[in-house]
Amino acid sequence: MTMLAPGAVIGILGGGQLGRMLATAAAKLGFDVHIYTDEADSPAVRVATAATVSAYDDAAALAAFARAVDVVTTEFENIPRAALERLAAEGAPVRPTAAAVATAQDRCNEKTFFQAHGVATAPFAPVDSRADLDAALAQIGAPAILKTRRLGYDGKGQARLATPADADAAFAALHGAPAILEGHVQFACEVSVILARGVDGATSAFDVCENAHGGGILHRTVAPARIAPEVARAAVEAAATIAGALEYVGVLTVEFFVTPEGRVIANEMAPRVHNSGHWTVEACLTSQFEQHIRAVAGWPLGPTVRLADAEMVNLIGAEAQDWAQWAADPSARLTLYGKREARQGRKMGHVTRLRPKDA
Amino acid sequence: MTMLAPGAVIGILGGGQLGRMLATAAAKLGFDVHIYTDEADSPAVRVATAATVSAYDDAAALAAFARAVDVVTTEFENIPRAALERLAAEGAPVRPTAAAVATAQDRCNEKTFFQAHGVATAPFAPVDSRADLDAALAQIGAPAILKTRRLGYDGKGQARLATPADADAAFAALHGAPAILEGHVQFACEVSVILARGVDGATSAFDVCENAHGGGILHRTVAPARIAPEVARAAVEAAATIAGALEYVGVLTVEFFVTPEGRVIANEMAPRVHNSGHWTVEACLTSQFEQHIRAVAGWPLGPTVRLADAEMVNLIGAEAQDWAQWAADPSARLTLYGKREARQGRKMGHVTRLRPKDA
Repeated sequence: MTMLAPGAVIGILGGGQLGRMLATAAAKLGFDVHIYTDEADSPAVRVATAATVSAYDDAAALAAFARAVDVVTTEFENIPRAALERLAAEGAPVRPTAAAVATAQDRCNEKTFFQAHGVATAPFAPVDSRADLDAALAQIGAPAILKTRRLGYDGKGQARLATPADADAAFAALHGAPAILEGHVQFACEVSVILARGVDGATSAFDVCENAHGGGILHRTVAPARIAPEVARAAVEAAATIAGALEYVGVLTVEFFVTPEGRVIANEMAPRVHNSGHWTVEACLTSQFEQHIRAVAGWPLGPTVRLADAEMVNLIGAEAQDWAQWAADPSARLTLYGKREARQGRKMGHVTRLRPKDA
Repeated sequence: MTMLAPGAVIGILGGGQLGRMLATAAAKLGFDVHIYTDEADSPAVRVATAATVSAYDDAAALAAFARAVDVVTTEFENIPRAALERLAAEGAPVRPTAAAVATAQDRCNEKTFFQAHGVATAPFAPVDSRADLDAALAQIGAPAILKTRRLGYDGKGQARLATPADADAAFAALHGAPAILEGHVQFACEVSVILARGVDGATSAFDVCENAHGGGILHRTVAPARIAPEVARAAVEAAATIAGALEYVGVLTVEFFVTPEGRVIANEMAPRVHNSGHWTVEACLTSQFEQHIRAVAGWPLGPTVRLADAEMVNLIGAEAQDWAQWAADPSARLTLYGKREARQGRKMGHVTRLRPKDA
């Protein structure tokens, strides 16, 4: 395993808050960071050593980026596969690979991949036409949820069907985009596994954490999840199976439903660090961001020891206007992303609270 | 108290590792950072939003910097007083003030100031000539140490006198620079107080920590210091007295000798975050870097709660070549400063180890 030496340049595709926190973690280990983003004045660029602001299909800019960096990684799962393949063709190590990222870009491929490796999912069927939707409903039943196969996040590109009578409205809401119908899963809670896999194939997971969503956006994560140890183990094993099957390098996040009977059902994965892992910055010896940088730099993974129980709450849109109140709350550790505009539904920052560990 | 809003620009004078870690802490709170340094390719510039590389007496560059930032602070105590005064004259809030920083720039003024506020120091006398040195030796005795009054750090600009017979050699070693003779203090240990004072005059100290030096350079800090609680309280009270007397805003570091009888004798202060406070990043709810940014931004100080016992060891010069070994040690949290050249005596990084708190 070749370790990148301090002073090497970590290339990150995407300029959002995850890139910003990855850049900070990379700097702590002595690396320089070069951000490639298609947005001007992005949060990550303001803490990076270098930046390229260009489209993800700009072959010349991608080639120059590949030459300027020692490894390429991503903070955003919707980087076009072609961009990742182009960077690899230019000779840059791309971690995780284009194939791994692409698997997570299509909900149908992702669920098919999960099932092929023995990881349970909700029942699902692809929907490319109105007739497909009827067939899928006949197979899966209602309630169900119709989602775009690609480019959805934070609850965007989704329509719920309480009964088959909602089919017309749901189909219309997706504007003909290739879709997937997913059966409803009765769950006791939603959890995520933040797992890293190194260049050498070693894996290490943080303690499984529990998520609460609101309006399709993550609202709150608590660590550890309030689930039985064997349920947590099953979730981590499933995530490790997926990471191994993808020959994944870096931090991979897999979200699961936990059923009332204690079964874990994979919902989706993100080929990157994740909002539900932000609590690791304050609570763990190694943060998810440092862990990802370690993995893609070919370093041994760091210890994921959790020093405290943690709760993370997102500050979304106008909620970030209360920054002064959070700054004055000694029980709250505040992180703000440096975004200029607090648009509705936009993640602006988060607050982490620590408590002594339960015995 | 006016709090700077997220998105405001923190101006930092100096481009070293302290500026780098301050910049990272500022970014976590949503601030942009503008570094002013006279060195190209410095550690802090590589993680900052903006940089000015110019001399500290470049009036035009200082004026432009003052206009570009919302507050000015420093990571380096030897910023010329005139530069700080110029920035204040241009309308930038300078925290700490030029007067406070200047007090720490001259060992004689510093010790005189300590004594004027009831804080004990070693016996000392100014030495501007060979005859002064004889007079000082007659007053203070040997062993003693002759130091330049200004611009010394990490053991540079110092000469020890075991007996009065060493006077000629010691005087010659300082090349005629204005100097101070300091009497030897018999000490049980050396400790430092990292104390923050806010715009509103509130103060907050981290737990007193204990330092071991080698060759005049800090080698190792452990927190908490192995001293009695009343000794720690006396040190914190002395530091708070000094901070108040300076109308200080930001993190102030005061190093003390602790005598075998438990008296605290102020050795020197640094008007900035300090190497002996690096352990706060991993061990405390608020790091010294975040605390300094909070103070200079007019925010309430954060909680200094220590979650674990800590030990910090510096990586100096060639020691940083062992980075791969440190990266693989799960008990060690590694920080590297991104310095290109591992010159002898140069601080390249540090390692922090945490242990569960002693009861």
